[in-house]
Amino acid sequence: MGSSERVRPIRLGVAGLGRIGQMHAANASGRTGAVELVGVADAVEDVARSTGERLDVAWTTSFDELLAMDVEGVLIATPTGAHAGMIECAAAAGKHVLCEKPIALDLDASVRAIERARSAGVKLQVGFHRRFDPDWAAVAAKIAAGELGDVYLFRTSLRDKRSPGAGYLEGSGGFFVDVSIHDLDTARWMVGEIDEVTAIGGALSDPAFAEAGDLDNAVVTLRFTSGALGVIDNSRAAGYGYECSTEVMGSLATARIGYHRRVNVEWLTPGSQSVDWVNDFTERYPDAYLLELEGFAAAIRDDYEPAVGADDALAAFVLADACGRSFREGRPIRLEHENRGREYEIATAR
Amino acid sequence: MGSSERVRPIRLGVAGLGRIGQMHAANASGRTGAVELVGVADAVEDVARSTGERLDVAWTTSFDELLAMDVEGVLIATPTGAHAGMIECAAAAGKHVLCEKPIALDLDASVRAIERARSAGVKLQVGFHRRFDPDWAAVAAKIAAGELGDVYLFRTSLRDKRSPGAGYLEGSGGFFVDVSIHDLDTARWMVGEIDEVTAIGGALSDPAFAEAGDLDNAVVTLRFTSGALGVIDNSRAAGYGYECSTEVMGSLATARIGYHRRVNVEWLTPGSQSVDWVNDFTERYPDAYLLELEGFAAAIRDDYEPAVGADDALAAFVLADACGRSFREGRPIRLEHENRGREYEIATAR
Amino acid sequence: MGSSERVRPIRLGVAGLGRIGQMHAANASGRTGAVELVGVADAVEDVARSTGERLDVAWTTSFDELLAMDVEGVLIATPTGAHAGMIECAAAAGKHVLCEKPIALDLDASVRAIERARSAGVKLQVGFHRRFDPDWAAVAAKIAAGELGDVYLFRTSLRDKRSPGAGYLEGSGGFFVDVSIHDLDTARWMVGEIDEVTAIGGALSDPAFAEAGDLDNAVVTLRFTSGALGVIDNSRAAGYGYECSTEVMGSLATARIGYHRRVNVEWLTPGSQSVDWVNDFTERYPDAYLLELEGFAAAIRDDYEPAVGADDALAAFVLADACGRSFREGRPIRLEHENRGREYEIATAR
Amino acid sequence: MGSSERVRPIRLGVAGLGRIGQMHAANASGRTGAVELVGVADAVEDVARSTGERLDVAWTTSFDELLAMDVEGVLIATPTGAHAGMIECAAAAGKHVLCEKPIALDLDASVRAIERARSAGVKLQVGFHRRFDPDWAAVAAKIAAGELGDVYLFRTSLRDKRSPGAGYLEGSGGFFVDVSIHDLDTARWMVGEIDEVTAIGGALSDPAFAEAGDLDNAVVTLRFTSGALGVIDNSRAAGYGYECSTEVMGSLATARIGYHRRVNVEWLTPGSQSVDWVNDFTERYPDAYLLELEGFAAAIRDDYEPAVGADDALAAFVLADACGRSFREGRPIRLEHENRGREYEIATAR
Repeated sequence: MGSSERVRPIRLGVAGLGRIGQMHAANASGRTGAVELVGVADAVEDVARSTGERLDVAWTTSFDELLAMDVEGVLIATPTGAHAGMIECAAAAGKHVLCEKPIALDLDASVRAIERARSAGVKLQVGFHRRFDPDWAAVAAKIAAGELGDVYLFRTSLRDKRSPGAGYLEGSGGFFVDVSIHDLDTARWMVGEIDEVTAIGGALSDPAFAEAGDLDNAVVTLRFTSGALGVIDNSRAAGYGYECSTEVMGSLATARIGYHRRVNVEWLTPGSQSVDWVNDFTERYPDAYLLELEGFAAAIRDDYEPAVGADDALAAFVLADACGRSFREGRPIRLEHENRGREYEIATAR
Repeated sequence: MGSSERVRPIRLGVAGLGRIGQMHAANASGRTGAVELVGVADAVEDVARSTGERLDVAWTTSFDELLAMDVEGVLIATPTGAHAGMIECAAAAGKHVLCEKPIALDLDASVRAIERARSAGVKLQVGFHRRFDPDWAAVAAKIAAGELGDVYLFRTSLRDKRSPGAGYLEGSGGFFVDVSIHDLDTARWMVGEIDEVTAIGGALSDPAFAEAGDLDNAVVTLRFTSGALGVIDNSRAAGYGYECSTEVMGSLATARIGYHRRVNVEWLTPGSQSVDWVNDFTERYPDAYLLELEGFAAAIRDDYEPAVGADDALAAFVLADACGRSFREGRPIRLEHENRGREYEIATAR
Repeated sequence: MGSSERVRPIRLGVAGLGRIGQMHAANASGRTGAVELVGVADAVEDVARSTGERLDVAWTTSFDELLAMDVEGVLIATPTGAHAGMIECAAAAGKHVLCEKPIALDLDASVRAIERARSAGVKLQVGFHRRFDPDWAAVAAKIAAGELGDVYLFRTSLRDKRSPGAGYLEGSGGFFVDVSIHDLDTARWMVGEIDEVTAIGGALSDPAFAEAGDLDNAVVTLRFTSGALGVIDNSRAAGYGYECSTEVMGSLATARIGYHRRVNVEWLTPGSQSVDWVNDFTERYPDAYLLELEGFAAAIRDDYEPAVGADDALAAFVLADACGRSFREGRPIRLEHENRGREYEIATAR
Repeated sequence: MGSSERVRPIRLGVAGLGRIGQMHAANASGRTGAVELVGVADAVEDVARSTGERLDVAWTTSFDELLAMDVEGVLIATPTGAHAGMIECAAAAGKHVLCEKPIALDLDASVRAIERARSAGVKLQVGFHRRFDPDWAAVAAKIAAGELGDVYLFRTSLRDKRSPGAGYLEGSGGFFVDVSIHDLDTARWMVGEIDEVTAIGGALSDPAFAEAGDLDNAVVTLRFTSGALGVIDNSRAAGYGYECSTEVMGSLATARIGYHRRVNVEWLTPGSQSVDWVNDFTERYPDAYLLELEGFAAAIRDDYEPAVGADDALAAFVLADACGRSFREGRPIRLEHENRGREYEIATAR
């Protein structure tokens, strides 16, 4: 999207052809000159074949075969449980990785996968797409430039219109690791490190959540190292649509992001003026996912660290995990930041 | 505003001629046929005299003298510390009372004042003006009618543009009792009783807050008895303006209130479209305060209980007090609701 | 509304108790200390009696009796055909007049009524309420202060939600004199004198308009003396609601007015975000009509010329009449401004 | 953008590398898999070379050389005066054409170019990009589906932020042919054929316009064959930004389009809330131009008539020309529609 200069396209494969994987594959196969889609993989043969045929690329049910194709990098969009192992395989094959979040459902597996990628010298970018969205990027740039002054409050909402199926919940890692993790990454990115989280939540919309030991609504408060306060609200069942909104209130200015139109049309009917509202993240973020993909390609092409790397993935995971603990134990959880060389200062929840 | 039927005006006095008192006096002296301003009182003679002369009514520096005028009720807008004693005096004189919140800075004094009013048979209305605002009233009516379905989340922001002076802070009762109390009342009114509060906060804008042992920013999370979640954010120093916004997310619909214009004009200048933003509550709530006054007059005229009475005042105070305790102790505070006859089921923080 | 200083209330009567008259009477009887409603009159005895009883004032079916009451001024809200004669009666009785627009359905009658008022030394204010609306007043003030620079374009929409009854149309003076006249006054007030009008129109919503020889939709373009361009669109049948919007585009800035909420609440339902829309002018302009009334009272009390006087009434009428002629003759109509002393420079359509 | 199916890319060349040509070339060279950019041409060698090198495609200063490359179609974005001749050359070479509007500055040249393209059997699509914009397309679809009912009023604004240079004006064909033509096409597309236009205008922002015998602001009213009314306002110097807004008011509903953000962020500073505003059409229409390009490619690939063809180009040109005549003669101009076989029923201004 961004550049009008023709660049060498980076050859990529996509593994995992669910909703996000399909979107990545479509983006890679015709919306940007920055990448070239070489092949796709999915464990379900029908899905792999039909996608490959539709996009006119090679297809396979084997991740190893995908890695063996002439690709420079892979996009991993499989269920979370498979992420870490696939990162390790890709690293062993010398292929760069853009992996959906989280890297794994436990810290050890995450760290091991990250270390394998690091020692193999491959890039590892994590799928926090919001960092590439022009709206969030504009606000982050203003904050970094000091135009908001000292940040007092960070507030964000991430809400799904309706719940994913019970099957999805099972492997999701739970509400905080699956949903809040995006907001926790945004919080760190925009405002800085977080010292304490406190979470409340409930299963309000459907008994299936309680039966699965999971939540469908939660509120998390944050204390940043800077002293700033933060608050996140999340829902699996907002009803009206998908929402992803952020506010940052500072001493000099306050910024708000909250655009949710598909088409920018106002409809006037007797006594009412209305606009539409997006249903899901694919409707809200067509550009962000494309820019994320182009960012990954540029990091490979020009050999620099991805904008959202392993440290960010770990930090957001640790915070999400601490939210779960806060919820279960009914108390604030403090994070301690220990600097361990160039690695992420892994926070330990106390 | 509301009725076009001429009614007998209720004769009122206003005590305490600061910003709110002046607004009440101005409303009572010419914006509604429902009341007649008889006199004003302020401890500072110059203020009392100039206001009385400007509005062409009697004036005094003595609350007893105000009560002795031919008034049916009084509006108490003095500093909080004086509220309870004045309510008791008014009750003894058989005069109805509309008192700014909170009734007192401790529970015992509040309860005693309320009991005096009750046994004297005078109305005691508390100044939660938002209940009279047409925007909030419309949403509350929809919730009550079931149009939002089950409430999942209540979210509200109350923010001042800039801090009041240090002198004001001293007698304010602290941030939660002075500011959050409005949101806690709105939460109870719209969604129902609250079982637990957790507060975080900080003195971020000005060292004067820390020196006074007070806060300038806070976030409070709520657990409602219904299971619904709630979150309040408050600030003394939002910078951009006064904000009072509420969102209620339900299973069937979500409602948002957040109107902050003085004039409804969009200004377009090179590269920018802008609207104005109110500076304070007087600019945001001209109608709400007038309707509050008319509601008080109607309760006297037609002899019914005020829409926002002593029980509400106590409940909000107890919750605000629990927020302070949560903040100091760094933990959630549970409220227990004990039903004690017709009195408010005073919650005990555990 | 505005002042908090108590002033001597001006004693007024209201003649004609249709929708506008009822609103004036309600405003005069309890929403402002600036006036005192003394009596009401309507040709229909039931209407006069019930209104008088409800508002607790004298009532009559005779305008002469209303004038004979101890009133300083009268508000005339009868059908247009009666305006001029009633102004003359009021002038003969030495009573000030606030008359709904237009003064008459022909120029001679208008001029005669104006001259009677002038020679009797009574104020004659005309009901262009928009001049008193805070939104329009704010923009007009900015224009006057030069903040918009040179005006290039004036654009305005005035649309009714649905058509008034056929009975109303009959005495209305036709579409341009009944509807567009408001926009023509706003145009003159904000941008200045107009040299040429061109009108197109149609009877699109209901054959009743065509049968009555009238229109239900029209577009009028304007050439201002300054060179600026203008465009007005009007409708009797917008369907979605009452709309009154204005844009002024200048070399330095552009201003837009277009607020149409009853309550400032956003409703979110699956896939949609909506706000309400006002049904008619009473819902849009509660404050403007009250400020208009207070402006009339102030002009009487402090003895100055009303902000919207006879010259403005004549000018807008002449322009509206020229629109009708442009429509009928299918060509632009030029206005010539002849200065006749202190009187309005009556434009002659060429 | 739209399809996720890989299709055979259509090989294209771009001629004329000004602002629009550069945008087309950038779109063709990396934003869609539907086309492949083969070469670029510009009369200025430096421009041609640097663009070709940047996009890594062949470049030339000769249109004939561009046609001789292995292209299936060409995009013509040269100054208007060159369009018709280039269309004829392309037709002679058997290449499809997407040409910026208007085809020529006089009707005969337009008709001749169209006939050459038709007899050569090449597609001729005209650059009315708005037809491909998702906002306009959504409203057009609703109108076509009858959801707005009978259209009463079509209203549209097209305004540039600031004037193009004097050099641009010279070959532009004048204000109506260069600017209003877009709105006239939109009007026909959305509401239907137009029977009468009336234009007023002025040179208000800069004497250069008057010196060039041209305008910088105009208002055009329309009478549609259906009886509906229309109004267009255009400006070269809106100052605040580029605006392209449309409203269609119907008997059942009204639709409004008017989105002008670059980033969807609200900035709150003391007393003000603001959003940004686009500077020009490239900022407003990134998607529309890309969809236009994909539409052209699809018409070639699947061999159907372009959605915006020669008839539309002629019709809009005739209307724009009639606007100029109306302005010069100070009177409405009627259009007569004569059906001449499959050709456009060329309207004759009477």
